[in-house]
This record gives sequence, structure tokens and C-alpha cells, in this order.
Amino acid sequence: MATHTITFDSTPPVHVPTGTLLTEAARQAGVDITQPCGGQGRCGRCAVLVQEGGVRRRSTLRLTSEDVAEGYALACQSVVEEDAQITVPPQEKVERRLTTDRVLAEVTVPTGYDPARDQTLRRVTVTLTPPSMDDQTDDWSRLQTALRPHGIPALTASLPTLRKIGRTLRTGEWTTTAIIDTASTPPRLLDLRPTPFVVDTSVPGGAEAPPTNGNPLPLWGAAVDIGTTTVSVWLVDLLTGQVRAQVAEYNGQIARGEDVISRIIYAGKNGGHEEMQNLVLNTINGLVDTACKRVQTTPDQIYKVTIAGNSTMMHLLLGLPAESIRLSPFVTGVNEPPPFRAADIGLGVNPEAVVDCLPGVASYVGADISAGVLSSGVDDSEQVSLFIDVGTNGETVMGSRDWLVTCACSAGPAFEGAGVVDGMRATKGAIEEVWVNGDTFEPTFRVIGEVKPRGICGSGLISLMAELFLTGALDKGGNFNTHLSTPRIRNGDHGPEYVIAWADETGHGRDIVLSHVDVDNLLRAKAAIYAGFSVLADGVGMPLEAAERVLVGGSFGKYINVEKAVEIGLLPDMPWEQFHFLGNTSVKGAYLALLDKTARARIAEIARKMTYIELSADNSFYEAFTSALFLPHTDLSKFPSVKVDRVNTVPVIK
Amino acid sequence: MATHTITFDSTPPVHVPTGTLLTEAARQAGVDITQPCGGQGRCGRCAVLVQEGGVRRRSTLRLTSEDVAEGYALACQSVVEEDAQITVPPQEKVERRLTTDRVLAEVTVPTGYDPARDQTLRRVTVTLTPPSMDDQTDDWSRLQTALRPHGIPALTASLPTLRKIGRTLRTGEWTTTAIIDTASTPPRLLDLRPTPFVVDTSVPGGAEAPPTNGNPLPLWGAAVDIGTTTVSVWLVDLLTGQVRAQVAEYNGQIARGEDVISRIIYAGKNGGHEEMQNLVLNTINGLVDTACKRVQTTPDQIYKVTIAGNSTMMHLLLGLPAESIRLSPFVTGVNEPPPFRAADIGLGVNPEAVVDCLPGVASYVGADISAGVLSSGVDDSEQVSLFIDVGTNGETVMGSRDWLVTCACSAGPAFEGAGVVDGMRATKGAIEEVWVNGDTFEPTFRVIGEVKPRGICGSGLISLMAELFLTGALDKGGNFNTHLSTPRIRNGDHGPEYVIAWADETGHGRDIVLSHVDVDNLLRAKAAIYAGFSVLADGVGMPLEAAERVLVGGSFGKYINVEKAVEIGLLPDMPWEQFHFLGNTSVKGAYLALLDKTARARIAEIARKMTYIELSADNSFYEAFTSALFLPHTDLSKFPSVKVDRVNTVPVIK
Repeated sequence: MATHTITFDSTPPVHVPTGTLLTEAARQAGVDITQPCGGQGRCGRCAVLVQEGGVRRRSTLRLTSEDVAEGYALACQSVVEEDAQITVPPQEKVERRLTTDRVLAEVTVPTGYDPARDQTLRRVTVTLTPPSMDDQTDDWSRLQTALRPHGIPALTASLPTLRKIGRTLRTGEWTTTAIIDTASTPPRLLDLRPTPFVVDTSVPGGAEAPPTNGNPLPLWGAAVDIGTTTVSVWLVDLLTGQVRAQVAEYNGQIARGEDVISRIIYAGKNGGHEEMQNLVLNTINGLVDTACKRVQTTPDQIYKVTIAGNSTMMHLLLGLPAESIRLSPFVTGVNEPPPFRAADIGLGVNPEAVVDCLPGVASYVGADISAGVLSSGVDDSEQVSLFIDVGTNGETVMGSRDWLVTCACSAGPAFEGAGVVDGMRATKGAIEEVWVNGDTFEPTFRVIGEVKPRGICGSGLISLMAELFLTGALDKGGNFNTHLSTPRIRNGDHGPEYVIAWADETGHGRDIVLSHVDVDNLLRAKAAIYAGFSVLADGVGMPLEAAERVLVGGSFGKYINVEKAVEIGLLPDMPWEQFHFLGNTSVKGAYLALLDKTARARIAEIARKMTYIELSADNSFYEAFTSALFLPHTDLSKFPSVKVDRVNTVPVIK
Repeated sequence: MATHTITFDSTPPVHVPTGTLLTEAARQAGVDITQPCGGQGRCGRCAVLVQEGGVRRRSTLRLTSEDVAEGYALACQSVVEEDAQITVPPQEKVERRLTTDRVLAEVTVPTGYDPARDQTLRRVTVTLTPPSMDDQTDDWSRLQTALRPHGIPALTASLPTLRKIGRTLRTGEWTTTAIIDTASTPPRLLDLRPTPFVVDTSVPGGAEAPPTNGNPLPLWGAAVDIGTTTVSVWLVDLLTGQVRAQVAEYNGQIARGEDVISRIIYAGKNGGHEEMQNLVLNTINGLVDTACKRVQTTPDQIYKVTIAGNSTMMHLLLGLPAESIRLSPFVTGVNEPPPFRAADIGLGVNPEAVVDCLPGVASYVGADISAGVLSSGVDDSEQVSLFIDVGTNGETVMGSRDWLVTCACSAGPAFEGAGVVDGMRATKGAIEEVWVNGDTFEPTFRVIGEVKPRGICGSGLISLMAELFLTGALDKGGNFNTHLSTPRIRNGDHGPEYVIAWADETGHGRDIVLSHVDVDNLLRAKAAIYAGFSVLADGVGMPLEAAERVLVGGSFGKYINVEKAVEIGLLPDMPWEQFHFLGNTSVKGAYLALLDKTARARIAEIARKMTYIELSADNSFYEAFTSALFLPHTDLSKFPSVKVDRVNTVPVIK
């Protein structure tokens, strides 16, 4: 048998026979290559770059065709065929490649964002002619006269704003900066500030240009997504369009019910509505505070807030009775709330800030989905897309530029880490990815923030469940195989459970486990979501495969393994290239609406044209749900890529 | 000397010689003719109708040329010349003739008032298609769809209104009555009521017509005038235009200062602004309650309020800083406040009611004058009018359809009965007219409500001061003649005073007096007002006589004696026919604006086109004021009709 010379970076070369795995060659060369999945080709962490020579790739899972063209190979799945020079990339580069490409992209400001054209808020600095005995015009008229040359006609203002005009004008010695909402009729003065802004007056309209002299004074806005489980707030500089802070937290209402139905019932009790409203306001206001501290501003500098969220969340936020949402024929009170002032509901930003609640579609398809369709671009493409929001309410949209249908199902909060014993949000200390060794059942995991783990977030749960299934630790019914020779599977307080991390490895000194009950919750969640989009596709008479793109939104973590989500039957079994993970599409849609009035109008248009299919009236949903309560599904022909060799209890990925 | 037969009504005739006074003939016939002024021809109460024959009228004061043409004569001023048949009219007929003609007219609904055309509020009853599984439209959109055929496009609403929609629609079984403000953009839903109104559907637009079947359901509005001293509220049925209740009360702020300047200073103290706002709100809200009880409705049924008032009152009501009003260059914060919701300031009507503060002109010429110019018709005539508002701030307007100039002076509250020891508002128990016998100095008076007197209102004070002056009890400097042999003039706690009513004649068991200090206050008030309009006339280069009409507004009482007001030098000495007493022109203007959007627009136009003359910068005002601090004036040539024969100390009226 021929022997080949393999060189890893600058280490001394090793000589190995044809057919040797690169991981084995590396071991001989004394080079450490990470194999969290136990060398099963599932995690993609052993990717190496073949600089010269060639290897035979048995599997290229987790590699794109571009990766292969560049010379990447999975060391655990590639065998030596000739001499080769191999580069082992730094681990963080591997991680970055895996997490940035088809996973959550950084938020970029929309191309060509021009606040003067796109933004409804205006900030204008003017110098007024002071009053005199010859000109006793009132302050309010005087201000409006000064603003008129800036294209601002007669204004309105609330009484609190009117009350501060006189003092502000005099404090600023008749030079003042006005913040104006041009979206209302007539335009509304939101605030007047005495201290003149340093502005660039060398350009036309310079009074509105962001100051360029080292001390940028942003005009702040906030984009908010109120999820049943997670609330997200983005703090945005409206003059540049940049997102300056992103914060998220569990919705304070969770303690009063995990799903929208139990929240509505709670709200219907005496004082429940006020309590629910206060709970979510406290969550939002706390997030706003945190975001503001992060960029060294204060909430009263936020003058515009766009809010997305499902219909129940929107009703509870606004104090609107929500009872009709849960009772047949399931109608909302208000799908498109008129804009109002922050003070009207006690939102902790500038009391005069414009609050724009984005329009929803129906009781179970809210503004979060209208916003998600916008930010995912479903409505802006000729391609047919399947848009799946992996959230508590499992909404799905199918459509294109020409048509949009939508439905929702109650998935529960499991994929957001709630309702799972060691679940947590995708923040520091959360296990976000897991690999389980097929022989030893020992896990390897990655923790957000590279600290000791404190729990598992949505992406970690998907990953863990898939690994446990593929290694045979879980059967297709979601039951633990308690006969395996591993201490990781044991009987806990709630039946069988798998220990991901022992107490001495964790941040809080307790074992981190996945219990049978957790698995059941996750199964029901994934089954509901799968049933939702498959019934929807049936409803429009299109196979799922007709979708040219699968756009996945959700707060389950910073990134998600497509194949693991497919392996558990959460996502349809389609080519990896068709999946796009978009993170929180709702808050991103709210962000786009915050910046651009055209985007805002498009959301309204999306909400108007979406056809809502009520699944609660559809028997086929229950059938689809029941069939999906398995790993990956009752009907394995729907998941051809997931082949499990039950003889060895080790799955084989082709 | 010839003898003539005089017959009074159906009493036996008497025979008297030529030259006998009719009052003497009546005495002989046993007919009682009232002579409150002691037969001096001043009060007009002895008017009789000469049916046949003739008398010679020595004076026709208090009679119009029409009266004389009809045959009226003053019995105390007419002598027998031939046989005559005389009718003595019932006393109430005399009173009515004296008080209704050129005095306060009853409020009449503007001719041709059509709520569908003139009113900004609409009340529309609609029946909605209930939601079903086939039509899951949200309640808010469903309501708007139902209203669209009624010419109402997309609506807005406050959150509290949105919150009640769902329940209201279901309680009313999908038939509902909407109250909509069409003046806002977009139109605003103010309220939704479940109980269907009984409406006349037999006419087009019948859904808005006032029900005619015995149970009128008015759509209520309120017109408010906030005077420095007196607050007036009219409760108006907006569907018919009828004023259903008129109530007035002293402004609760009086205890914190009598004039606007002292109020502004008080408001500038810590907590003063809130206190001032609460005081006037309490006054208004109390009046609204009273008015509502009177017509058996509740304040929450009032959906629109128009408010007139001087600029300081408006600022204090709205919580706007008022300091700049009193400091040079004397500018207001806001002359034309945008409309707001009643809840925004705690006005005790429906919280969603539209509150429309009418536009003012300048610091010392407020919305009360804009409204007064409208209701008095100054701006609607080719005639040059002099409009004098005899209130605490003594505003004057001169002008016509083509031009309007205005000024103001601080007159103080004396003519509204405040700041005078026994002064009171023109309500039950107020002495509203006084006659003093020129020989005995004994008074006769008329009390509102025909009860025992409790004080003197503005018209009573004018009347009393004129009588005391004409009878010589007061000299031209306003000093009491303490040498007269009458117990009515005595030394009181504050110097000389005149006793109008002894304790046993009064409602509260105390003497009612006019003190030297009171006279001084009244003198200063009338001097300020006189100086105001005379300087204004000078300013536009027109003699006062150029005014073809003198329109007098004010809350001084139900009616006022022209000649007495002239006699004390409050009003210019012009022919009686040119005077028109209009009562509270401000609340009347607010009432017209409440009903008719065209009238509302006219007030804004009036405010815009009025030229304000700042008297505080005008030395000639102080000169004019000082010259007017006499009865009737330093320069008697300005008051040719007021001739006082100081030899007899009894004035002779020509």
C-alpha cells in the first residue's frame, strides 16, 4: 500500500498509508483537532484546509460547495490519497465560518438610508427673532413661523410640550432644536431643546444633518418585539440608522402563563389586565434602561418606538380586552392600533415619543409576522418562500410577491428555553450547541460567553435532542434508552433524564439535565410547528418542496444547526442551501419600520394582503400534529436524509 | 284755566286743569303709579299708554321714539293738555319693555342651524355584520367598515376608547352608536354606545337626526367663558342648537388675586400653577355638574367644549407658564392652543370630549374678545362699531368688516360685583337697579328673584353710583356729601358710606352699603375702561362719535341703564339708540363656535386680523385714565347730556 507524506502547518511531516483518516494522521503528527461529535462528521468542527495535494472526502456535511472549492475538508470524514499540505484553521475561525454564513447575519443599515427622505421624525435647529414691543407674537406662533422655511407647516403639540416652549426658547436664547413627528396630521412637535446642537450649516438642510464634529448626537428610536416568551429591544440611532444596542429578556408575564391562552384567561380576572400590562411594560422599560446605559444615553432621548408582537401581546400591552381572541370566532379587538404617545401607556421613553404598534393580521398571526415577512423579504421576491417563526406561537407564512398565506399553532415556549427544566435564553452561560459521542454518549458543548454553563438555550436543545436521537439515546418516540452503559442517562425526579453537565462543571453548581418531560415539551413544540407549515402547504395545494427558500426566524439562539433541526423533524427535509436563519425577524421588521416610512407602509400592505387560515377549525392540523410527535416523524419518507441504523443504534448520515 | 277729563283704565274719570302732571291726576283717581326715582324721569317705571287725547311730554328719557309713536309717556314727566284715556300697563310689562329691548336678548339658535352641515361632531348609529369563522375581521376594522357608507373614512381613537369597542359592540348585539369628531385628521371616535338610539330612519341621514318621538336624546356640548372674575357655562343640545342651561359662578382663583397680574405672580410660586389650574377646573366642573343636573343629564354625555377666556385665564387653565404675559414685551406662550381631550386637563366632562380653546390675540386681548367680536357682529358689518367688554380687563375693539383694532386695560372686578364690600354676582338676591329720591335720598331698588337683597351686582352698582351722583350725594370726585340730612350717609369702618338697605330689609340681616372705598374702586374701573376706548379711538384717528354702534358686553347684570352708565362716565355720551347691551358676548361667541365650524373659523380669522395696541407702552393712556377718574369726567364737554345743577345739588337731565 502506498505511503503518503502529510504535513500539518509547520509541524514535522508524518507518513501514513492510503486511506488513513486525516484525524488519525493529525494524531500521529501531534496536532490537536477538535472532534466534539466524536468523529461522526456531524459537527463540522474538524474542518481543515487542504493547501496542496488531495484527500477523498467521504462526507462534506457542514461544508458548503464554496468551502469544498476552497479546499476545506472534514478531517474525520476525509482519507489520505496522496501527499498533502494541510492547514488547521484557528478554532474561532471555524466557529465564525459556521455561525456567520447562513446563520444570523449582523444587522446592517438599509442601503442608502437617508433620514431626510425615509424618516418620519425630524430634528430641526432654528434661531427665532426674539419678541419685542413691536412684535408681540406668541411663542408658539413664533416657533412655527421659524420652522416654516424648513418645510414644516403648522404644528400641533400636546399640552406638556406646549408648557415647555416658553422656558426652552428663553433658556436657549431663541435658538432651539425641535423634534417633530411628520407622520401625524398636522405634524406634531414632540420636544424642544434649548441647547443648540452643533450642526453642519455648510450643506443645504444642514440643520438636520447629524453633527460630524466628533460629538455625534443621535436621535434615538427603539424597535421592540414583544414575544410571548421573549421581549427584544433594539436601540437605534435614527440619523445614521445604526443599531447601537440589542437587548432581550423573558417577558415578565411568563409567571402568569406560558402561552397566550393562559395569559388571556389571567388577564380576564379581576385586576389581571392591569397586572399583565404592567408586567410587560416593566420588561420593556427595563430593557430600554439597559440599552440606554450601554450607549450612555437616557430613555427620554428616545422619541419613536415601533412595536411588533403577536396579537395577544399587543392587546395586553395596550390594555385592550383580549377575551375575543381565545373564543370562537377568534377575532381581535384591534389589528392596527392608531399611533399614540408613550405617556398614554407609561412606556419608559420620552413621554411624547410616537409609539407605532405595527399591524397584525388575525388573532394568532400578529404584527410580529407582518414585520417578519417584511424583514425576511418574503413579499419582495418572485421565489416562493416558506417563512417559519420558531416561537411560542409557531406562525408560518408561505408566499411570494404575489400571494401570502399564513397560519399559526401553539408551540409553547420550549424553543426559547422556557418550560424546560434547565432551559434559558440564548445569553451568557447558555449551552448553544451540543455534540454527543456515539460510543461513549459523553457530550461536548459550546457555551455562550465561554463560561461555565448555567442552562441550555433553544439551539442547544435542538442540537441536544438531535444528538441524543442520532446516537440512539432517544428513540423515535422520544423515550430515553435507559439500557445504555453510561452514567449520563439516569432516573431523575421526573423520570429518565440525560445529564449534559455535572454539577462541578456548571456555573451554578447543579447538574444540567434534559428530562423526559422536557423532551416531551420539545416534541410537542416541534410537532406543532411542523404540522403548521405542512397543513399550510397542503391548504394552498403546494408541496413543501415548492418552497424555493425556507426562512427561519426565532429567538432560539444565536445560530441553529439546520441538519439537527431537520433530524428532529422541526424543519422540513430540504437541501441545506435553501435554509436561511434570520434570527428575530420581528424585531428586525420593527427596526426597518422605525427607520423607513416606506417599509412601514409595506408592513401594513403585508398585513392587509395576507390570507389567514384558522387551524383551530381544521381537523387535518390535529392529524398532522399527531403524526409529527415522533423523531423525526411517523412517516420517515418525509425525511429521506435522516436514516437511522437501529441495528447498531448509531445513525448513519448520508 | 281749562279743565280736562282724564280716565285711567276703567276707574272713574277725574277732572284736572291744564298742566297737571299725569302722576297727580292718577293720584286723584286712586291709581297707583310706581315712581322709584321720585318722579325725576330717570327710571322709566311710570310709563303709561295714552290711548286717546294728548299730553305734553317734558322728557321722554327711557322711552324710544317707537315708544312715543305708540303713545307711551312718562307719567311723572307729562302734563295734561286735553281730555285723555290712559292705560297703565301691568308693571311686569313695563319691566319687560325696559329689559328686553336693548338689553340682554334671549339666546336664539342661529337661523338655519343644521348639525349635519355645521357641526363637527357626528352621531351615527350602525348595525355591523357579526364576526364568524368566515369573517374574522377585527372589531375596530369592522366598525370602520360599517361607518364608511356614512361618509366617515378611516378613524382614529384614543386607547381608552379602543378598549371599550369590543364589549360595546357585543353588549349592543352589533348595533351601536358612534360619536365622532370630524374636525380632527383622521376623524376621531370619541365614544361608542351599546344601546341603540331610537332614530328617524324615514329621512335621508336619519341616523343622525335628533329623535322626534318624545324622548329627545341630545348630543351635549358646553360653551365656557373663563373670566378673571366670573366663569360662565352654557349647556347646549348640539342637535337642535338650543342652550338648555346657563350657569355662572365666581372664578375660584379670585382668592389668589383679583386681577390677572396677581394671578400670574401667584402661579409663579411653588405649586402655584397647579393650584390655579385646579381652582378654575373646580369652578368649571362644578358649573358643568349644576348645568347637567338642571337638564337631567350627566357630564360624561358632553362630548365637545369650546372655551373662551382672556389669555391669562387660558394659560392658567392649560397649565401654560404665564410669566411672559406680565413682563415686557408682554407675549403669551400660546394664542391658539391645539384641540385636546378633556382628560388631558381633567375637565369634568366625557374624558374623550374635544376641548377647543378659542384663539386669542395678545397677552391682554384673549379669546373672550375674539369670541365677543364674533357674537357681537363687529366684524360682520360695514358700520364702525365700538365694542366694549365691561369686565375685569376692560377690553375694547373698534372696527368693522374691514378693520379691527383692540386694546385692553386693567379695570378690576368691581363691575362684576367683586372687590366691593357688598358686591355680588347678578344672581338671586342681587340689587340690580337702584333709584334714589332726590329730596329724601331714600333708595328704591329691584332685586333679582324678588327676594330680600343680599348684595349689589354690577348693574346695581352703576345705577347706584349714578343716582348718588345725580342727587348730589356724591360729588364729581366720588366723595360722599356728609352734610346731607339723611341717615343713609354715615361714617362706616372704611370712611363715609351709603346704606342702600337696612339690616331688617336684607336677606342676611346685615346692612347693605356702598363705601367710599367701593366708590373709589368703581371710579378706577370706569376710568380705565373709558380711557381704553378713548385712547383706542385716538389711536386710529377717529372720534368716538364715528362709532355708529356701541356694543357693550359684560357680566355686570341682566341689564344695564345706558344713561346711568353714561352719567358716571363709564360709557361715552352718545345717543341711546346707538347702544346695544349684549350680556356675556364671550360665552355667546363660544356657543356659536360650538355649534358651527364656520363661526369657529371666523373667530380664528378675527384673532388673526385684529391689530393690538399695547396701552402699557402708551403715556396717553395714563393721562386719559387720570382725566376720567371723575364723575362723569374732568372734561364735562365730553358729557354734554349730563348736566348737574350744583346750586340745587340736583342734576337736571335734558
